[in-house]
Amino acid sequence: MDERLKKQLDFALLIDGEKNILRQTHLSGHGRRENDAEHAWHMAVMAYLLREYANEPVDIAKVMILCLIHDIVEIEAGDTYAYDEESHKSKKEREDAAKEKIFSLLPEDQKRDFTALFDEFEEGKTAEARFAKAMDNLQPLILNNSNGGSDWREHQNTYAQVYGRHSGTRAGSEKLFAYTDSVINRHVEEGNILKPE
Amino acid sequence: MDERLKKQLDFALLIDGEKNILRQTHLSGHGRRENDAEHAWHMAVMAYLLREYANEPVDIAKVMILCLIHDIVEIEAGDTYAYDEESHKSKKEREDAAKEKIFSLLPEDQKRDFTALFDEFEEGKTAEARFAKAMDNLQPLILNNSNGGSDWREHQNTYAQVYGRHSGTRAGSEKLFAYTDSVINRHVEEGNILKPE
Repeated sequence: MDERLKKQLDFALLIDGEKNILRQTHLSGHGRRENDAEHAWHMAVMAYLLREYANEPVDIAKVMILCLIHDIVEIEAGDTYAYDEESHKSKKEREDAAKEKIFSLLPEDQKRDFTALFDEFEEGKTAEARFAKAMDNLQPLILNNSNGGSDWREHQNTYAQVYGRHSGTRAGSEKLFAYTDSVINRHVEEGNILKPE
Repeated sequence: MDERLKKQLDFALLIDGEKNILRQTHLSGHGRRENDAEHAWHMAVMAYLLREYANEPVDIAKVMILCLIHDIVEIEAGDTYAYDEESHKSKKEREDAAKEKIFSLLPEDQKRDFTALFDEFEEGKTAEARFAKAMDNLQPLILNNSNGGSDWREHQNTYAQVYGRHSGTRAGSEKLFAYTDSVINRHVEEGNILKPE
Protein backbone atom coordinates (compact mmCIF):
# COMPACT_ATOMS: atom_id res chain seq x y z
CA MET A 1 0.00 0.00 0.00
CA ASP A 2 1.35 3.44 -0.81
CA GLU A 3 2.27 5.86 1.93
CA ARG A 4 -0.50 8.36 1.17
CA LEU A 5 -3.31 5.81 1.43
CA LYS A 6 -1.73 4.33 4.57
CA LYS A 7 -1.79 7.74 6.27
CA GLN A 8 -5.40 8.31 5.26
CA LEU A 9 -6.53 4.92 6.56
CA ASP A 10 -4.59 5.40 9.81
CA PHE A 11 -6.53 8.64 10.25
CA ALA A 12 -9.82 6.92 9.37
CA LEU A 13 -9.13 4.32 12.06
CA LEU A 14 -8.06 6.85 14.68
CA ILE A 15 -11.28 8.85 14.40
CA ASP A 16 -13.21 5.72 15.36
CA GLY A 17 -12.32 6.94 18.87
CA GLU A 18 -14.86 9.74 18.56
CA LYS A 19 -17.57 7.14 19.26
CA ASN A 20 -16.23 6.78 22.79
CA ILE A 21 -16.33 10.48 23.70
CA LEU A 22 -19.49 11.01 25.75
CA ARG A 23 -21.41 14.27 25.89
CA GLN A 24 -23.74 15.57 28.59
CA THR A 25 -26.79 15.26 26.33
CA HIS A 26 -29.03 12.20 26.64
CA LEU A 27 -30.72 10.49 23.70
CA SER A 28 -34.48 10.92 23.27
CA GLY A 29 -36.70 8.58 25.29
CA HIS A 30 -34.52 9.33 28.36
CA GLY A 31 -31.79 7.25 26.75
CA ARG A 32 -28.09 6.91 27.49
CA ARG A 33 -25.60 9.72 26.99
CA GLU A 34 -24.84 10.62 23.41
CA ASN A 35 -21.35 10.40 21.92
CA ASP A 36 -19.56 12.84 19.65
CA ALA A 37 -19.90 10.76 16.47
CA GLU A 38 -23.67 10.44 16.92
CA HIS A 39 -23.95 14.16 17.63
CA ALA A 40 -21.97 15.03 14.49
CA TRP A 41 -24.03 12.66 12.32
CA HIS A 42 -27.26 14.15 13.64
CA MET A 43 -26.04 17.72 13.08
CA ALA A 44 -25.03 16.98 9.48
CA VAL A 45 -28.39 15.42 8.59
CA MET A 46 -30.20 18.32 10.27
CA ALA A 47 -28.06 20.81 8.34
CA TYR A 48 -29.20 19.23 5.08
CA LEU A 49 -32.81 19.01 6.27
CA LEU A 50 -33.01 22.60 7.54
CA ARG A 51 -30.71 24.37 5.07
CA GLU A 52 -33.57 26.54 3.81
CA TYR A 53 -33.46 28.39 7.15
CA ALA A 54 -29.83 29.53 6.90
CA ASN A 55 -29.70 33.34 7.05
CA GLU A 56 -27.37 33.39 4.05
CA PRO A 57 -26.90 31.02 1.10
CA VAL A 58 -24.59 28.16 2.15
CA ASP A 59 -22.46 25.55 0.41
CA ILE A 60 -24.11 22.52 1.97
CA ALA A 61 -21.11 20.22 1.35
CA LYS A 62 -19.02 22.64 3.41
CA VAL A 63 -21.64 22.83 6.17
CA MET A 64 -21.86 19.05 6.37
CA ILE A 65 -18.12 18.43 6.59
CA LEU A 66 -17.80 21.22 9.21
CA CYS A 67 -20.49 19.44 11.25
CA LEU A 68 -18.90 16.03 10.78
CA ILE A 69 -15.40 16.94 11.99
CA HIS A 70 -15.96 19.84 14.42
CA ASP A 71 -15.43 17.66 17.52
CA ILE A 72 -12.61 15.46 16.23
CA VAL A 73 -9.98 16.98 18.53
CA GLU A 74 -11.97 15.73 21.52
CA ILE A 75 -10.59 12.26 20.80
CA GLU A 76 -7.42 13.63 22.39
CA ALA A 77 -8.69 16.60 24.38
CA GLY A 78 -11.96 15.18 25.78
CA ASP A 79 -15.39 16.81 25.70
CA THR A 80 -15.71 20.20 27.35
CA TYR A 81 -19.22 20.63 28.75
CA ALA A 82 -20.80 23.78 27.34
CA TYR A 83 -21.54 25.16 30.82
CA ASP A 84 -18.27 24.22 32.57
CA GLU A 85 -16.43 27.53 32.96
CA GLU A 86 -13.27 26.06 34.52
CA SER A 87 -12.71 23.57 31.71
CA HIS A 88 -13.36 26.24 29.13
CA LYS A 89 -10.32 28.17 30.34
CA SER A 90 -7.98 25.38 29.24
CA LYS A 91 -10.08 24.27 26.26
CA LYS A 92 -8.22 26.17 23.55
CA GLU A 93 -4.78 25.03 24.67
CA ARG A 94 -5.83 21.38 24.98
CA GLU A 95 -7.60 21.42 21.65
CA ASP A 96 -4.76 23.12 19.78
CA ALA A 97 -2.34 20.41 20.90
CA ALA A 98 -4.87 17.71 19.98
CA LYS A 99 -5.51 19.28 16.59
CA GLU A 100 -1.82 19.26 15.72
CA LYS A 101 -1.42 15.66 16.88
CA ILE A 102 -4.49 14.24 15.12
CA PHE A 103 -4.27 16.07 11.81
CA SER A 104 -0.54 15.34 11.56
CA LEU A 105 -1.48 11.75 10.74
CA LEU A 106 -2.75 12.99 7.37
CA PRO A 107 -0.81 13.73 4.18
CA GLU A 108 0.39 17.36 4.30
CA ASP A 109 -2.26 18.76 1.92
CA GLN A 110 -5.07 17.11 3.85
CA LYS A 111 -3.60 18.17 7.17
CA ARG A 112 -3.91 21.76 5.92
CA ASP A 113 -7.45 21.16 4.63
CA PHE A 114 -8.80 19.52 7.80
CA THR A 115 -7.07 22.07 10.02
CA ALA A 116 -8.60 24.91 8.00
CA LEU A 117 -12.07 23.32 8.23
CA PHE A 118 -11.72 22.83 11.96
CA ASP A 119 -10.59 26.44 12.42
CA GLU A 120 -13.37 27.73 10.17
CA PHE A 121 -15.98 26.16 12.43
CA GLU A 122 -14.31 27.45 15.59
CA GLU A 123 -13.97 30.99 14.27
CA GLY A 124 -17.54 31.12 12.96
CA LYS A 125 -16.81 33.84 10.43
CA THR A 126 -18.35 32.23 7.34
CA ALA A 127 -22.02 31.59 6.54
CA GLU A 128 -21.29 27.85 6.59
CA ALA A 129 -19.64 27.95 10.00
CA ARG A 130 -22.47 30.05 11.44
CA PHE A 131 -25.09 27.61 10.20
CA ALA A 132 -23.06 24.59 11.38
CA LYS A 133 -22.80 26.22 14.82
CA ALA A 134 -26.57 26.70 14.85
CA MET A 135 -26.86 22.92 14.35
CA ASP A 136 -24.35 22.35 17.18
CA ASN A 137 -26.83 24.18 19.44
CA LEU A 138 -30.13 23.00 17.98
CA GLN A 139 -29.32 19.27 17.92
CA PRO A 140 -28.90 18.85 21.70
CA LEU A 141 -31.79 21.29 22.27
CA ILE A 142 -34.30 19.07 20.47
CA LEU A 143 -33.11 16.00 22.38
CA ASN A 144 -33.19 17.76 25.73
CA ASN A 145 -36.59 19.29 24.92
CA SER A 146 -37.93 15.82 24.08
CA ASN A 147 -36.76 14.65 27.50
CA GLY A 148 -38.62 17.43 29.34
CA GLY A 149 -35.48 19.52 29.80
CA SER A 150 -33.87 16.94 32.09
CA ASP A 151 -30.30 17.76 31.02
CA TRP A 152 -30.78 21.39 32.08
CA ARG A 153 -32.55 20.39 35.29
CA GLU A 154 -29.87 17.89 36.26
CA HIS A 155 -27.15 20.52 35.88
CA GLN A 156 -29.28 23.30 37.44
CA ASN A 157 -28.55 25.50 34.46
CA THR A 158 -29.55 29.14 34.66
CA TYR A 159 -31.35 31.17 32.03
CA ALA A 160 -28.19 33.23 31.51
CA GLN A 161 -26.14 30.10 30.78
CA VAL A 162 -28.64 28.54 28.43
CA TYR A 163 -29.56 31.74 26.64
CA GLY A 164 -25.88 32.69 26.39
CA ARG A 165 -25.03 29.49 24.61
CA HIS A 166 -28.04 29.36 22.33
CA SER A 167 -28.02 33.02 21.35
CA GLY A 168 -25.27 32.06 18.90
CA THR A 169 -27.88 30.22 16.83
CA ARG A 170 -29.23 33.59 15.70
CA ALA A 171 -26.15 34.31 13.58
CA GLY A 172 -26.81 31.13 11.59
CA SER A 173 -30.59 31.19 11.43
CA GLU A 174 -33.09 33.75 12.67
CA LYS A 175 -35.89 31.25 12.09
CA LEU A 176 -34.30 28.47 14.14
CA PHE A 177 -33.31 30.96 16.81
CA ALA A 178 -36.96 32.05 17.18
CA TYR A 179 -37.87 28.39 17.74
CA THR A 180 -34.97 27.97 20.20
CA ASP A 181 -36.05 31.07 22.10
CA SER A 182 -39.60 29.77 22.48
CA VAL A 183 -38.33 26.41 23.76
CA ILE A 184 -36.02 28.04 26.30
CA ASN A 185 -38.77 30.36 27.56
CA ARG A 186 -41.15 27.44 28.03
CA HIS A 187 -38.55 25.50 30.02
CA VAL A 188 -37.97 28.57 32.21
CA GLU A 189 -41.75 28.71 32.84
CA GLU A 190 -41.76 25.02 33.71
CA GLY A 191 -38.83 25.41 36.09
CA ASN A 192 -36.39 23.24 34.13
CA ILE A 193 -34.10 26.22 33.59
CA LEU A 194 -33.45 28.49 36.60
CA LYS A 195 -35.23 31.82 36.17
CA PRO A 196 -33.35 35.07 35.80
CA GLU A 197 -33.26 37.04 39.10
CA MET B 1 -44.37 27.16 15.05
CA ASP B 2 -45.40 26.68 11.45
CA GLU B 3 -46.43 23.28 10.14
CA ARG B 4 -43.44 22.86 7.84
CA LEU B 5 -40.84 23.41 10.56
CA LYS B 6 -42.81 21.18 12.94
CA LYS B 7 -42.69 18.30 10.44
CA GLN B 8 -38.99 18.79 9.88
CA LEU B 9 -38.21 18.82 13.60
CA ASP B 10 -40.42 15.75 14.19
CA PHE B 11 -38.33 13.98 11.56
CA ALA B 12 -35.09 15.23 13.14
CA LEU B 13 -36.21 13.79 16.47
CA LEU B 14 -37.37 10.47 15.02
CA ILE B 15 -34.00 9.76 13.39
CA ASP B 16 -32.39 9.95 16.82
CA GLY B 17 -33.53 6.30 16.93
CA GLU B 18 -30.79 5.37 14.47
CA LYS B 19 -28.36 5.54 17.41
CA ASN B 20 -30.04 2.49 18.92
CA ILE B 21 -29.78 0.23 15.87
CA LEU B 22 -26.82 -2.06 16.46
CA ARG B 23 -24.71 -3.56 13.70
CA GLN B 24 -22.57 -6.71 13.75
CA THR B 25 -19.35 -4.69 13.48
CA HIS B 26 -17.34 -3.97 16.62
CA LEU B 27 -15.49 -0.72 17.28
CA SER B 28 -11.69 -0.73 17.09
CA GLY B 29 -9.84 -1.85 20.22
CA HIS B 30 -12.25 -4.81 20.47
CA GLY B 31 -14.94 -2.36 21.52
CA ARG B 32 -18.71 -2.68 21.73
CA ARG B 33 -20.95 -3.11 18.70
CA GLU B 34 -21.30 -0.10 16.46
CA ASN B 35 -24.64 1.57 15.78
CA ASP B 36 -26.03 2.87 12.49
CA ALA B 37 -25.52 6.56 13.26
CA GLU B 38 -21.84 6.03 14.09
CA HIS B 39 -21.37 3.94 10.96
CA ALA B 40 -22.99 6.62 8.78
CA TRP B 41 -20.88 9.38 10.36
CA HIS B 42 -17.70 7.40 9.79
CA MET B 43 -18.64 6.63 6.17
CA ALA B 44 -19.33 10.30 5.41
CA VAL B 45 -16.00 11.49 6.84
CA MET B 46 -14.19 8.71 4.97
CA ALA B 47 -15.97 9.67 1.75
CA TYR B 48 -14.61 13.22 2.09
CA LEU B 49 -11.15 11.96 3.09
CA LEU B 50 -10.85 9.41 0.28
CA ARG B 51 -12.78 11.16 -2.51
CA GLU B 52 -9.66 11.31 -4.69
CA TYR B 53 -9.98 7.53 -5.16
CA ALA B 54 -13.48 7.55 -6.65
CA ASN B 55 -13.38 5.98 -10.13
CA GLU B 56 -15.39 8.88 -11.56
CA PRO B 57 -15.73 12.52 -10.50
CA VAL B 58 -18.31 12.79 -7.70
CA ASP B 59 -20.44 15.55 -6.15
CA ILE B 60 -19.13 15.16 -2.61
CA ALA B 61 -22.22 16.79 -1.02
CA LYS B 62 -24.35 14.11 -2.68
CA VAL B 63 -22.00 11.33 -1.57
CA MET B 64 -22.04 12.58 2.02
CA ILE B 65 -25.83 12.85 2.29
CA LEU B 66 -26.20 9.39 0.69
CA CYS B 67 -23.85 8.00 3.35
CA LEU B 68 -25.61 9.86 6.15
CA ILE B 69 -29.13 8.63 5.43
CA HIS B 70 -28.62 5.24 3.73
CA ASP B 71 -29.59 3.26 6.85
CA ILE B 72 -32.42 5.48 8.11
CA VAL B 73 -35.16 2.94 7.32
CA GLU B 74 -33.54 0.54 9.78
CA ILE B 75 -35.08 2.62 12.58
CA GLU B 76 -38.30 0.83 11.59
CA ALA B 77 -37.01 -2.23 9.73
CA GLY B 78 -34.01 -3.20 11.88
CA ASP B 79 -30.47 -3.95 10.69
CA THR B 80 -30.09 -6.80 8.22
CA TYR B 81 -26.73 -8.48 8.69
CA ALA B 82 -24.81 -8.48 5.41
CA TYR B 83 -24.32 -12.25 5.51
CA ASP B 84 -27.80 -13.31 6.72
CA GLU B 85 -29.45 -14.82 3.64
CA GLU B 86 -32.82 -15.48 5.26
CA SER B 87 -33.30 -11.90 6.44
CA HIS B 88 -32.21 -10.59 3.07
CA LYS B 89 -35.21 -12.25 1.44
CA SER B 90 -37.63 -10.01 3.39
CA LYS B 91 -35.32 -6.98 3.49
CA LYS B 92 -36.76 -5.07 0.54
CA GLU B 93 -40.36 -5.46 1.69
CA ARG B 94 -39.60 -4.42 5.26
CA GLU B 95 -37.51 -1.48 4.15
CA ASP B 96 -40.04 -0.23 1.60
CA ALA B 97 -42.73 -0.07 4.27
CA ALA B 98 -40.33 1.66 6.66
CA LYS B 99 -39.25 4.15 4.02
CA GLU B 100 -42.84 5.18 3.35
CA LYS B 101 -43.57 5.53 7.06
CA ILE B 102 -40.45 7.48 8.02
CA PHE B 103 -40.22 9.86 5.07
CA SER B 104 -43.96 10.61 5.28
CA LEU B 105 -43.17 12.67 8.38
CA LEU B 106 -41.51 15.22 6.10
CA PRO B 107 -43.07 18.01 4.04
CA GLU B 108 -44.03 16.58 0.62
CA ASP B 109 -41.08 18.08 -1.31
CA GLN B 110 -38.59 16.75 1.22
CA LYS B 111 -40.31 13.36 1.33
CA ARG B 112 -39.63 13.14 -2.41
CA ASP B 113 -36.04 14.32 -2.01
CA PHE B 114 -35.12 11.94 0.83
CA THR B 115 -36.89 9.01 -0.86
CA ALA B 116 -34.98 9.70 -4.08
CA LEU B 117 -31.67 9.87 -2.19
CA PHE B 118 -32.41 6.64 -0.36
CA ASP B 119 -33.33 4.91 -3.64
CA GLU B 120 -30.27 6.31 -5.40
CA PHE B 121 -28.01 4.67 -2.85
CA GLU B 122 -29.88 1.36 -3.01
CA GLU B 123 -29.85 1.25 -6.82
CA GLY B 124 -26.17 2.16 -7.07
CA LYS B 125 -26.47 3.51 -10.59
CA THR B 126 -24.75 6.87 -10.11
CA ALA B 127 -21.08 7.61 -9.48
CA GLU B 128 -22.05 9.05 -6.08
CA ALA B 129 -24.01 5.96 -5.05
CA ARG B 130 -21.21 3.65 -6.16
CA PHE B 131 -18.64 5.57 -4.12
CA ALA B 132 -20.97 5.75 -1.09
CA LYS B 133 -21.46 1.98 -1.34
CA ALA B 134 -17.69 1.53 -1.40
CA MET B 135 -17.61 3.41 1.93
CA ASP B 136 -20.40 1.19 3.28
CA ASN B 137 -18.04 -1.76 2.68
CA LEU B 138 -14.70 -0.18 3.54
CA GLN B 139 -15.75 1.35 6.86
CA PRO B 140 -16.56 -1.95 8.64
CA LEU B 141 -13.59 -3.60 6.89
CA ILE B 142 -11.06 -1.25 8.50
CA LEU B 143 -12.63 -1.76 11.94
CA ASN B 144 -12.76 -5.53 11.58
CA ASN B 145 -9.21 -5.60 10.21
CA SER B 146 -8.01 -3.57 13.21
CA ASN B 147 -9.58 -6.22 15.46
CA GLY B 148 -7.73 -9.07 13.76
CA GLY B 149 -10.76 -10.10 11.71
CA SER B 150 -12.75 -11.12 14.79
CA ASP B 151 -16.14 -10.21 13.27
CA TRP B 152 -15.51 -12.60 10.37
CA ARG B 153 -14.13 -15.30 12.68
CA GLU B 154 -17.07 -15.07 15.07
CA HIS B 155 -19.55 -15.55 12.23
CA GLN B 156 -17.40 -18.18 10.46
CA ASN B 157 -17.70 -16.22 7.25
CA THR B 158 -16.48 -17.87 4.06
CA TYR B 159 -14.30 -16.33 1.39
CA ALA B 160 -17.25 -16.42 -1.03
CA GLN B 161 -19.43 -14.43 1.39
CA VAL B 162 -16.82 -11.82 2.20
CA TYR B 163 -15.51 -11.46 -1.34
CA GLY B 164 -19.07 -11.35 -2.66
CA ARG B 165 -19.97 -8.43 -0.48
CA HIS B 166 -16.76 -6.48 -0.91
CA SER B 167 -16.45 -6.98 -4.66
CA GLY B 168 -19.01 -4.16 -4.94
CA THR B 169 -16.34 -1.73 -3.76
CA ARG B 170 -14.67 -2.06 -7.16
CA ALA B 171 -17.47 -0.18 -8.93
CA GLY B 172 -16.84 2.83 -6.68
CA SER B 173 -13.06 2.71 -6.41
CA GLU B 174 -10.52 0.41 -8.07
CA LYS B 175 -7.86 1.72 -5.70
CA LEU B 176 -9.82 0.99 -2.54
CA PHE B 177 -10.89 -2.36 -3.93
CA ALA B 178 -7.24 -3.33 -4.42
CA TYR B 179 -6.63 -2.52 -0.76
CA THR B 180 -9.77 -4.45 0.26
CA ASP B 181 -8.68 -7.45 -1.77
CA SER B 182 -5.28 -7.54 -0.09
CA VAL B 183 -6.89 -7.35 3.36
CA ILE B 184 -9.33 -10.17 2.58
CA ASN B 185 -6.56 -12.38 1.19
CA ARG B 186 -4.43 -11.85 4.28
CA HIS B 187 -7.33 -12.81 6.56
CA VAL B 188 -7.91 -15.94 4.50
CA GLU B 189 -4.23 -16.82 4.97
CA GLU B 190 -4.54 -16.21 8.70
CA GLY B 191 -7.66 -18.37 8.95
CA ASN B 192 -10.02 -15.56 9.98
CA ILE B 193 -12.05 -16.05 6.81
CA LEU B 194 -12.83 -19.66 5.78
CA LYS B 195 -10.80 -20.67 2.72
CA PRO B 196 -12.43 -21.41 -0.62
CA GLU B 197 -12.71 -25.20 -1.23
